[in-house]
Amino acid sequence: MQRYPRVVVVGAGFGGMQAAQSLAQHGVEVLLIDRNNYHTFVPLLYQVAAAQLEPEQVTFPIRNLLRRSPYRLRFLMAEVEEINLDQKWLRADGDVIPYDYLVLATGSQTKYLGVEGASEYALPLRTLEEAIALRNQILACFEQAAHTSDTELRRQLLTFAIVGGGATGVEVAGAITELVKTAIVRDYPTIDPQEIRILLVQSGDRLLPELPPKLGHYTYKRLWQVGIEIYLDTKVSQVTEGTVHLEDGTTLLAATVIWTAGLEATVPDTSTDLPAKAKGKLAVRSTLQTVDYPEVYAIGDMAYVEQNGKPLAGVAPEALQQGVAVAKNIARQLQGKAPQSFSYFNKGRLAIIGCYSGVGQIGKFALTGFLPWLMWLGVHLVYLPGFRNRLLVLLTWLHSYLLGDRISRRISAPKLYRHSTQSRVRSSTKPAILQASSSSRYHSEEH
Amino acid sequence: MQRYPRVVVVGAGFGGMQAAQSLAQHGVEVLLIDRNNYHTFVPLLYQVAAAQLEPEQVTFPIRNLLRRSPYRLRFLMAEVEEINLDQKWLRADGDVIPYDYLVLATGSQTKYLGVEGASEYALPLRTLEEAIALRNQILACFEQAAHTSDTELRRQLLTFAIVGGGATGVEVAGAITELVKTAIVRDYPTIDPQEIRILLVQSGDRLLPELPPKLGHYTYKRLWQVGIEIYLDTKVSQVTEGTVHLEDGTTLLAATVIWTAGLEATVPDTSTDLPAKAKGKLAVRSTLQTVDYPEVYAIGDMAYVEQNGKPLAGVAPEALQQGVAVAKNIARQLQGKAPQSFSYFNKGRLAIIGCYSGVGQIGKFALTGFLPWLMWLGVHLVYLPGFRNRLLVLLTWLHSYLLGDRISRRISAPKLYRHSTQSRVRSSTKPAILQASSSSRYHSEEH
Repeated sequence: MQRYPRVVVVGAGFGGMQAAQSLAQHGVEVLLIDRNNYHTFVPLLYQVAAAQLEPEQVTFPIRNLLRRSPYRLRFLMAEVEEINLDQKWLRADGDVIPYDYLVLATGSQTKYLGVEGASEYALPLRTLEEAIALRNQILACFEQAAHTSDTELRRQLLTFAIVGGGATGVEVAGAITELVKTAIVRDYPTIDPQEIRILLVQSGDRLLPELPPKLGHYTYKRLWQVGIEIYLDTKVSQVTEGTVHLEDGTTLLAATVIWTAGLEATVPDTSTDLPAKAKGKLAVRSTLQTVDYPEVYAIGDMAYVEQNGKPLAGVAPEALQQGVAVAKNIARQLQGKAPQSFSYFNKGRLAIIGCYSGVGQIGKFALTGFLPWLMWLGVHLVYLPGFRNRLLVLLTWLHSYLLGDRISRRISAPKLYRHSTQSRVRSSTKPAILQASSSSRYHSEEH
Repeated sequence: MQRYPRVVVVGAGFGGMQAAQSLAQHGVEVLLIDRNNYHTFVPLLYQVAAAQLEPEQVTFPIRNLLRRSPYRLRFLMAEVEEINLDQKWLRADGDVIPYDYLVLATGSQTKYLGVEGASEYALPLRTLEEAIALRNQILACFEQAAHTSDTELRRQLLTFAIVGGGATGVEVAGAITELVKTAIVRDYPTIDPQEIRILLVQSGDRLLPELPPKLGHYTYKRLWQVGIEIYLDTKVSQVTEGTVHLEDGTTLLAATVIWTAGLEATVPDTSTDLPAKAKGKLAVRSTLQTVDYPEVYAIGDMAYVEQNGKPLAGVAPEALQQGVAVAKNIARQLQGKAPQSFSYFNKGRLAIIGCYSGVGQIGKFALTGFLPWLMWLGVHLVYLPGFRNRLLVLLTWLHSYLLGDRISRRISAPKLYRHSTQSRVRSSTKPAILQASSSSRYHSEEH
């Protein structure tokens, strides 16, 4: 009669899902816990926000994994409320669950960096729900602008301000540009494309600061060519209804403000505080074990891991490799061996700009233009979980890039959105004028 | 200088969308108004609820229509607040819009028939949002049941009660059965399929009362064969949290109660009350004009139309034919001719049961079994708007019916749901026992 050791994995992102899959092959019982019953393929969320991909195409039902090893791997859809590190149990939705080993992989969340009003009036883009909310917001702005004759209000509705010039900010700026050039010009004959403005506000002196300067400069030039207004060395001091306030006193009227500027680690409540480093990330040993608890591991975006004296960048391949490493180390511990140090094998780094352009750093080579754009799409297609998702995303991309159209244009919560925006935008302009003048748009014109 | 007459169509369901398309070819300016920016293909909603189709596959962006005639056809996403029939204008989201002709096509909504608690605790299935909410509810019940060791609570979570034995009730009962036999048995190895109960409660003495008795009897037999418990001649007196109360005093414990039993016409607020008939449907002349306003038409589920002394059934083909007829009649009025009487050409009637069975009445032939099942799917595939939707639904059906699986299993609002259900179900059972005993499920078992 053998009792299998129980490993609990918290979080089904890249790190947690990989750890659970690898662990299931190592003679342990694995319980994977996530608040959602699906895995989100975060790198493609910006395409959901820009009405290119359907939400379902970038998610993967977690229980599909379990089908491969139904007796070793279990899943619990629950919120982890408390972890008792000394007694080795955690509480999730009221259930108390003991563990022998614990893998924390709860990722990170948006940080508004102390900017007043940002959490209230700016839209983040880190979860599927946020991507859908952003899609609803963008499309509803076009719907409202289409029947608004108040010029000032229409311009505000047609201005999209993106805060943060990292990979997500650049992706979103490019993707909204593509959306405008394809579906919007076809769908809204009454909207003049010249009135649509996309603004990108970056606090540092270049875009994509995590890549070599050359690539950031190329990205700036490319986005500028397609009509995006870029503010470098510019900090946001406040966000109010429909307005971004810059530190130099400038105000930018934009009904949609997208926040991609900051993040911090998401750490569940623990009985003893675990030591943290930059951005609230947990300090871990080189083996990915937490400092004081050798049976507790932390991986992915919530763990602070250095390599060659520099912190890791927080990208998916790092989390995936850590997921494999953590499974091996737990297996070693079970055999009475010492866990091994984690070492990240960097295959390179790609960033997509959109409009058939991307940038990349592979070994010593810096790539720009069409090739890294195609490589970015190809790599993400390969890593996207699920054969069906891969096929549908490929077909959707072929359709949208070859025919220049977008298909996913449903506003899924029109009422929820419209009320909040109308009050938002109208309160900052002239409600009476809008109502009176816009109605004239519906009087038949004389021909 | 010619002024084109303005026709406003309210509602983009089957009738309204068809009317707008037909009118655009008749030398008028058409404004189509709907609260959503998409058309919902209602006949397939039950497959969204049963996690078979994705929400996007049964919707169609209304602006796709406009692309075909961008100058004649306009769209406004808005809620119609008021119609002034005497002054010929309507107000939508604050905008005042005058019309020369008005086509009302606002459909119908769920009616709870005065049953106490039904609107609060039973889930309807008439809109896309409702279908998604029902899918979330069904899947979340399985998630919760999978880690609940309290037998009574688990049985309640695994009981699905459907009120109403018309086409929708029968479809849903069959579709949940299919879901259980495919995805659920694979995804939840800890749930015993024998514990899952599907109940169908019908007030009349047979299922599908709108079809010949023979077909209702076949449907009863078929659903009984696949394990559905059917209550005929049974009325619901009350719905409370997790419980259906029958008029004879019986109570059925079911965490999920689905309401498909009643409907009433949705009529916008008008300056003068329009005369109504059964189920609040508007009285119309044989030409589909309202009784007192010859320039105002009412079509589809909101209009009371008789043929051969019997009211029409309220199915999609009737609304589609009325949409075409209304466009012709408005064109006749513009030419100074009298509008013509509408006559519905009935091609037959099909109903799907699920599990490879259906029933149908075509001319004098009554069909049962596999053939009408296949015909139902075929007909709805042909009528589904959009080439892409048609292709994706066909592929999904081939996948699910040939391989016996479901792919659309994302719970899109787990937290929202889980809280309400836990309180719902737990309050009617024993919360303390649940919490204590269920945790034991997570203690490693001895092998």
